[in-house]
Amino acid sequence: MDLVDQLNHIFYPRAIAVVGASDNPKKVGFMCVKSLLEAGFGGKIYPVNPDLSELFGLKGYPSVTDIPGEVDLAIIAIPAQLTIPVVEDCVAKGVKGTIMLTSGFKELGTQIGLELQDRIRDVADKGEMKIVGPNCLGVVNPQVNLNATFGVELGLINPGSVAVAAQSGAVSQYIADALTSNNVGISKFISMGNRCNLYFDEMLEYLAQDEQTRVIVMYIEGLERPRQFMSVAKQVARRKPILVYKAGRNEKLNQASLSHTGALAGNYELYKAVFTQTGIIAINGMTELVDVTKALAFQPPSSGNRVAVLSGGAGPGIIMADKCHELGLRLAEFSPATLLQLRQLISPLNPVDNPVDLAWVSGNFDACREVLKVVIEDDNVDMLATAGAYIYRQLGLMRAIVDISGCYRKPLAFACLYTLVGEDDAEIAKLEENSIPVYPLPDRVVTGLAGLFKYGKILNTTD
Amino acid sequence: MDLVDQLNHIFYPRAIAVVGASDNPKKVGFMCVKSLLEAGFGGKIYPVNPDLSELFGLKGYPSVTDIPGEVDLAIIAIPAQLTIPVVEDCVAKGVKGTIMLTSGFKELGTQIGLELQDRIRDVADKGEMKIVGPNCLGVVNPQVNLNATFGVELGLINPGSVAVAAQSGAVSQYIADALTSNNVGISKFISMGNRCNLYFDEMLEYLAQDEQTRVIVMYIEGLERPRQFMSVAKQVARRKPILVYKAGRNEKLNQASLSHTGALAGNYELYKAVFTQTGIIAINGMTELVDVTKALAFQPPSSGNRVAVLSGGAGPGIIMADKCHELGLRLAEFSPATLLQLRQLISPLNPVDNPVDLAWVSGNFDACREVLKVVIEDDNVDMLATAGAYIYRQLGLMRAIVDISGCYRKPLAFACLYTLVGEDDAEIAKLEENSIPVYPLPDRVVTGLAGLFKYGKILNTTD
Repeated sequence: MDLVDQLNHIFYPRAIAVVGASDNPKKVGFMCVKSLLEAGFGGKIYPVNPDLSELFGLKGYPSVTDIPGEVDLAIIAIPAQLTIPVVEDCVAKGVKGTIMLTSGFKELGTQIGLELQDRIRDVADKGEMKIVGPNCLGVVNPQVNLNATFGVELGLINPGSVAVAAQSGAVSQYIADALTSNNVGISKFISMGNRCNLYFDEMLEYLAQDEQTRVIVMYIEGLERPRQFMSVAKQVARRKPILVYKAGRNEKLNQASLSHTGALAGNYELYKAVFTQTGIIAINGMTELVDVTKALAFQPPSSGNRVAVLSGGAGPGIIMADKCHELGLRLAEFSPATLLQLRQLISPLNPVDNPVDLAWVSGNFDACREVLKVVIEDDNVDMLATAGAYIYRQLGLMRAIVDISGCYRKPLAFACLYTLVGEDDAEIAKLEENSIPVYPLPDRVVTGLAGLFKYGKILNTTD
Repeated sequence: MDLVDQLNHIFYPRAIAVVGASDNPKKVGFMCVKSLLEAGFGGKIYPVNPDLSELFGLKGYPSVTDIPGEVDLAIIAIPAQLTIPVVEDCVAKGVKGTIMLTSGFKELGTQIGLELQDRIRDVADKGEMKIVGPNCLGVVNPQVNLNATFGVELGLINPGSVAVAAQSGAVSQYIADALTSNNVGISKFISMGNRCNLYFDEMLEYLAQDEQTRVIVMYIEGLERPRQFMSVAKQVARRKPILVYKAGRNEKLNQASLSHTGALAGNYELYKAVFTQTGIIAINGMTELVDVTKALAFQPPSSGNRVAVLSGGAGPGIIMADKCHELGLRLAEFSPATLLQLRQLISPLNPVDNPVDLAWVSGNFDACREVLKVVIEDDNVDMLATAGAYIYRQLGLMRAIVDISGCYRKPLAFACLYTLVGEDDAEIAKLEENSIPVYPLPDRVVTGLAGLFKYGKILNTTD
């Protein structure tokens, strides 16, 4: 059975056993069943616990082997020292995927923990069964209403095109939370944990072929198979952008990473150099992670770094131009024809050489539409950074962007006032329905565009 | 009349004339009156327009001099070429403050624009009248429900302790929007515009003595009186933190700034060096601006840079430690006594040397409270960076932080899951009511703390 088949049992299960299911609301085994039910999972759920005849109206079973039908996925939430016979049961039952939430393995840094992890790995390997974890939060696939985690709230993740695979369960939650609040949907969510027989390189391979996934985001503290990872990443990066936040960036931190999920962290500068060679986009902060991910999920990569900056009011344009400068993007130099046309479209009082101050014109749909067309059709322009301002004025610009969206291949992103807008949320939603990423601050637009240029460069590298 | 008296007429007016008031909803003169009314301004409002007998039930007057009672503040929204007689009227009437929304002055870069601005300045100076603007959005003082802008939505700004003075009206709106969405209240909001006879140094002087203002945030493209500004800033920085986002950071951008509100922008590196000497906190991005402002508005400055990192789940702790490293903060080395006590309080499976992984303990109020006390009382610790994770677990930590808040002088900030939490918003609100700044991402906690350390250093500089 190949890797994709194995992992499809985990991401698209028809029947799930929850080993350690419990009627005690404080137990992980209770939360898991609750997560599955609340997210509206449509397949079969089998609580497994010798002391439990029923949970939420579902019949309980003493062991996995007692379950009458087939089981695709087993979620295991029992103490570490009890896991071996359960993994053996799963193999005997023909289960091909498990999620081992339990901690107390390699991450302890003890001989006992290490040996226990090796033993469950050996049993699983023999049975051609993949284990997510141990010591993890689980897996979510919003496309099929699967919340196979002990975080009930993860059922609120919206389906989308971004896959998130994170070593730390807590960080995976923060990423999901931040993407959700920035209206970025998720295709697959995986808390990787200790990675006993399912490694980052394999997850990359799976996500590369996953049709729901357009962008791959990873939070990595350390890799146990760095060569395989870079080798797979080099291939995948040609097909989908891979963003990696590599954590544990100094000596002291490397120790923390080591004791966390049990992998050697290594020198960050070394990692960064290898990432660049491999075609991985290295991410330095969590807000940058959100901004670049959003741009890549909504817009095509950029073949060049010449940015046209258009804003309602000069200030946001200057901030965006500053950020271009900081991130190695260039302000496009408009052609004489473009300048001439802009001069006719925009008030003579406002600058039209890049950045363009739309000023009062930003309230005028027709004028904004013309300005956008003139600028986007200029051969000296690769990308458009746009920002609104003054609620009643920015509407014209917003609607004009919606109108031209989809007509051009050049990336465009937009910033606008968010919290104070009240009823304008519908306008923001319309932009995003039309694949325009909207940001609450102008410099974040440029962070997004810089990511599109980085990925464009990766695609254009010929080796 | 001194500066404070003059500006009090603008920020605390009892009677306001709106010159150019209009019944056309598309006109700035309409929006201004609407803004005043919708924000619930309690004083008198006089629409001024020879063609308007009444607006929103308010009696209209042909000119400012026709108004029967005293007028503290005149908001002027008429074409530039008509402004001189109106400014003369205001002086004749004894008005001490005006807000000139009109554009078409120095920012044009034309001789006519420049001369017009000089003329209104001369008239105002003779009458001891200050002008906010021209070419601005106006002023908001949420404390007295004053929204003297043409942005009706700015009435939604919450009162608080942060003053925002920005050269660009559009940027001032973005800052207000971002602070509001991050639950940071505003004391005074000023769109400075062209600064014809009211300069950044004067605004700084006013905000320094303003009791509502604890933190001063400025967006500056260029300064026309740099020496005065630095001289005032040097004094004020000892009393209140001054954060400056200096925009227009390369040659091309300096041009854009120049044409925007008519001031020379200058070399950014030079500005930055002078800011540091002066005790100004230089801000590089809009998200950093929000994070540092929030920390300074909620917490005391820090005397040292040794950070204790505590998180529910190791990953957020590693991210926070990474950020400490990046921003020049150090991970505190706990005393042997602290380590011993932490070892007893926290599961033997989790690291207790800094960063501390609270893991399951983070759901336990009593244990979290003890951990926090042990760590905060350690003499080797200057600040606490804390983060929750797993909704049902982070509550114990959140409540423990609330419990100890106010008992210690050491700064503390907290990150937690935000969007996916649902009903936990009340817990977040409780933290912020107790002056704990809450951030949606762990690295943003550290950005905030780094600001507290920067300001602590400024206070400790003896010269």
